[in-house]
Amino acid sequence: MNWYERRVRESLEKLGLEVGGGAPHDPQVHDKRFFQRIVSQGSLGLGESYMDGWWSCAQLDEFFFRLLRADLGQKARRPWREALAALRARILNMQSPRRASRVANVHYDLSAEFFQTFLDRRMVYSCAYWKAADSLEQAQEDKLDLICRKLRLSSHDRLLDIGCGWGSFLKYACERHRCESVGVTISGPQASYARRDCAGLPITILECDYREIGSRHQGRFSKIVSIGMFEHVGPKNYRSFMRVVDDMLTDDGVFVLQTIGDNYSCLRCEPWLDKYIFPNGVAPSVEQIGKAIEGLFVMEDWHNFGPDYYRTLMSWYRNFKDRYPSLNFDPPMGRDKFFRMWEYFFASFGSAFKARHLQLWQMILSKRASPSVYLAAR
Amino acid sequence: MNWYERRVRESLEKLGLEVGGGAPHDPQVHDKRFFQRIVSQGSLGLGESYMDGWWSCAQLDEFFFRLLRADLGQKARRPWREALAALRARILNMQSPRRASRVANVHYDLSAEFFQTFLDRRMVYSCAYWKAADSLEQAQEDKLDLICRKLRLSSHDRLLDIGCGWGSFLKYACERHRCESVGVTISGPQASYARRDCAGLPITILECDYREIGSRHQGRFSKIVSIGMFEHVGPKNYRSFMRVVDDMLTDDGVFVLQTIGDNYSCLRCEPWLDKYIFPNGVAPSVEQIGKAIEGLFVMEDWHNFGPDYYRTLMSWYRNFKDRYPSLNFDPPMGRDKFFRMWEYFFASFGSAFKARHLQLWQMILSKRASPSVYLAAR
Repeated sequence: MNWYERRVRESLEKLGLEVGGGAPHDPQVHDKRFFQRIVSQGSLGLGESYMDGWWSCAQLDEFFFRLLRADLGQKARRPWREALAALRARILNMQSPRRASRVANVHYDLSAEFFQTFLDRRMVYSCAYWKAADSLEQAQEDKLDLICRKLRLSSHDRLLDIGCGWGSFLKYACERHRCESVGVTISGPQASYARRDCAGLPITILECDYREIGSRHQGRFSKIVSIGMFEHVGPKNYRSFMRVVDDMLTDDGVFVLQTIGDNYSCLRCEPWLDKYIFPNGVAPSVEQIGKAIEGLFVMEDWHNFGPDYYRTLMSWYRNFKDRYPSLNFDPPMGRDKFFRMWEYFFASFGSAFKARHLQLWQMILSKRASPSVYLAAR
Repeated sequence: MNWYERRVRESLEKLGLEVGGGAPHDPQVHDKRFFQRIVSQGSLGLGESYMDGWWSCAQLDEFFFRLLRADLGQKARRPWREALAALRARILNMQSPRRASRVANVHYDLSAEFFQTFLDRRMVYSCAYWKAADSLEQAQEDKLDLICRKLRLSSHDRLLDIGCGWGSFLKYACERHRCESVGVTISGPQASYARRDCAGLPITILECDYREIGSRHQGRFSKIVSIGMFEHVGPKNYRSFMRVVDDMLTDDGVFVLQTIGDNYSCLRCEPWLDKYIFPNGVAPSVEQIGKAIEGLFVMEDWHNFGPDYYRTLMSWYRNFKDRYPSLNFDPPMGRDKFFRMWEYFFASFGSAFKARHLQLWQMILSKRASPSVYLAAR
């Protein structure tokens, strides 16, 4: 047993994880190079060596939960690699309009058939609301309904959805409330899908960056929503994003923002997730959101249902395991490696919510709210 | 009509306020020096000239509402007097342990008999919760109950109340949930009153600064609350305050914070209020709170019922008008001026909530929360 292996085994043992152990959360190592790789490459190496099949785990999400849970209590300083990455993010605008399309190309332009392997039938690609639901279908419908109630949506409203994805929220909202609406997405395939899926409803889909909405659309909206898109905006652009919303919202309008949240103000995301799943994604902190809305909006309500993202991701994971085998799809990295990449995403990301490192926030923001209390739905 | 009068009249007319007009919100000027005074002294002059009887208004809160409402939509820059005051606050720690006692001396040490002229019978001196109430008594009880529910209080808990005032929350909580508890106040008269009022219950009252709790008390608490005291902590001390809570709270504990909130990050409060009612009081912004809790707490829930503070202050105002005449009390500034000072406070402060300049926030913060959603009561 070399120095790397001893060091890794010892560290994992402190967290109750035994390499080669018999518990479902114990990691099984199939290639000895694993030990040196995670010492030298950290979390990126952990993820890439999983994709390469160097290790596996019967219950991957529980492995991550133990890893992440231990860390939460400590007030550890940021490791130097993280600091270096933060420096890079300070210098560059990682989510400039030119760079912003990268996440669309890498991720959201994957075929709708692929996302159908794990999403619900409406194709809602954000955290579901499990308060009263016992299936993913129901939890996603409850989430869409919760947002409509928080928006107090009616047929008199003009509704804007920034980052509308495949149009699931707009379709739901317009079918029930008959409001005129506009959806914005940066992904061509998503825009086409949404236009097809929303045909016959008073819904316009614009394929553009959120910074272009003002030049692409005349008139303001009484209700604006953004669900799971703010994670791609980036700290350098939080203020411009809020200015866009402020510009597009009527004075008595309401804005509901759903976003993943971080306990810490970061300038970049976890390296493996950044490289393989969400290029340049960053979850905001309370402070970063506070700074971005200051003087523009009144903070009416802030609802955290982070642990529901764990349940959502576990549902996606189960669906993916069931349905991926029958999907006719040949990714450049090979079917198995691609499968393990998504497996790793569902399990590690889900555990970050269960361990409370990450949060799921829905906020209600108003501009010049009425003098009555905004009693938020839950 | 001189230049000052013309200028003031014109400005007020734009807001629908006519000097000497017949509407209840129109100001009546009894001393012509009023016009020059408010031009040269701003909001401080407005308040002091009211105390001096230079002007009056049949419906004072509506006068302020029109004044404040107009301002909210504008993204005006801070006036230079405000900037100068902010500079002073940057240099000095206005809420150092030595200075912190000033607000107690000026304000909270006023006799309990005086506060009884306007508060409910429990002596709850913070915003009430009017969701389902139609009287101040009920709304204050509902607020105390709401906090107990948010804390999920039970007889197994050890409870700490930072800034316990006359002990109203602790008494309510201990009577219903039989939990052992400690209250902290910086005011001698409040501590004596609370000890008397809570006799027979498992409640200890400490008379000290919140920074001394750790040295005055052994052991941690499973539940901590702070209701309407954070406004006296000051931006320079927000982080130390949160560190005190972090130190005193068990790892699975819950902290409920009720505080007034401001749409902007400020370093000092409105000059008149600062001088006469709350010396060195500052309402925090979302950003300031976010910065103070970063890495210490998970933000579980944030509830805004700011407009309820308008209703609370209007109730206090009505009670005060009814009961003050029969109070045997001779303040150094004289009875009438003292009456007008409090009148001005209730009306102007109340309108700041109605116009949505100020917010009333209840936040639920946890340290290492359980992996389940914290479904907050409303």
